[in-house]
Amino acid sequence: MNKTICEQLRLYLVTDRDLSLGRPLQEIVTEAVAGGATMVQLREKEASTADFVALARQLKAALAPLGVPLVINDRIDVALAADADGVHIGQSDMPYEDARRLLGPDKIIGLSVESLADIEAANLLDVDYIGISPVYGTPTKTDTKEPFGLEGLRRAVEMSTHPTVAIGGMNAQTVADVVATGCNGVAVVSAICSAPSPREAARELLEIINNNL
Amino acid sequence: MNKTICEQLRLYLVTDRDLSLGRPLQEIVTEAVAGGATMVQLREKEASTADFVALARQLKAALAPLGVPLVINDRIDVALAADADGVHIGQSDMPYEDARRLLGPDKIIGLSVESLADIEAANLLDVDYIGISPVYGTPTKTDTKEPFGLEGLRRAVEMSTHPTVAIGGMNAQTVADVVATGCNGVAVVSAICSAPSPREAARELLEIINNNL
Repeated sequence: MNKTICEQLRLYLVTDRDLSLGRPLQEIVTEAVAGGATMVQLREKEASTADFVALARQLKAALAPLGVPLVINDRIDVALAADADGVHIGQSDMPYEDARRLLGPDKIIGLSVESLADIEAANLLDVDYIGISPVYGTPTKTDTKEPFGLEGLRRAVEMSTHPTVAIGGMNAQTVADVVATGCNGVAVVSAICSAPSPREAARELLEIINNNL
Repeated sequence: MNKTICEQLRLYLVTDRDLSLGRPLQEIVTEAVAGGATMVQLREKEASTADFVALARQLKAALAPLGVPLVINDRIDVALAADADGVHIGQSDMPYEDARRLLGPDKIIGLSVESLADIEAANLLDVDYIGISPVYGTPTKTDTKEPFGLEGLRRAVEMSTHPTVAIGGMNAQTVADVVATGCNGVAVVSAICSAPSPREAARELLEIINNNL
């Protein structure tokens, strides 16, 4: 039995090569999933398309047997070439309607929302989930709007008709409060990518999440 | 009657926002085509996907009625979203087989080749044309291999089983010699994008090309 999208969102790893302390992304991802990460977003801002596709294929081959979905940040072409499970798009990426048309009805499409207005707009779309971003200020994203904060996140989750994952400043200290707002999961970057043991970090995060859902 | 790909390659404009002296790309492209440019490649390395798609759509709408094909540099997703006429891919972009599978049999796929070995490899693929790059050293591309030079270009053209367009250092002073090597056309960046009058520059280049084919 496949997990529902809500279950898949529970502990959602977003990769960041620059925050991985020089370790290969494949290692970070494999370890994170061994520790319990439920979904992986491959995010590459600098890679060539050839390298991006090759990496996506490697991760897809590693994750598919484990039933862990792989989504690609922004690049519909890379997702199509690697037959990834879907994409995650931001407000300045491919418009949702185009992404859906190119990917077909069965692929996962997640959309970042950075304001309550974005959520109202997303409610009109057939996206599979929204990423509410950022909850807290975070050093890994400098181009986002005002943080939602816990109260803002609670309102955002209530307002959304789609499953929700919270992102931005998620770590072992913050996830309990975040999950208590009612979101379906948390998306982490440095809390796993920069951890001494990504596997142990994922295990610890998932335990806190499961205890506070 | 549609032009053949060989005719479409004759004066091939590659856009470069940074070299357009602050003028909108739409203006550069419209003027260049009014002057005789036969094909346009939209190249955007920094734009968001949303902006890239929007610009591609605008150019497609402007060029389609004129019968001038629009190809997109690297980004298959943008080409698909905007229903461009094809893509131009480099050696580190999407592998050809993936690009063809995603675009279907009818779209134009051009491939940059930077060595004779690349040309031998390209001869085994069903690409629509190759871009031989660079012919001369050029300030607009810093990541390419040793220039072909005129003699190297002549050998490259002879070796290729595909239509050829020469790129790298093309301007009113160089195109006569370049076209005399037997290539089907020349691709220019700054010679049109940075010209005081892109229309006049295109007109002058096309006249030299036509006189030396």
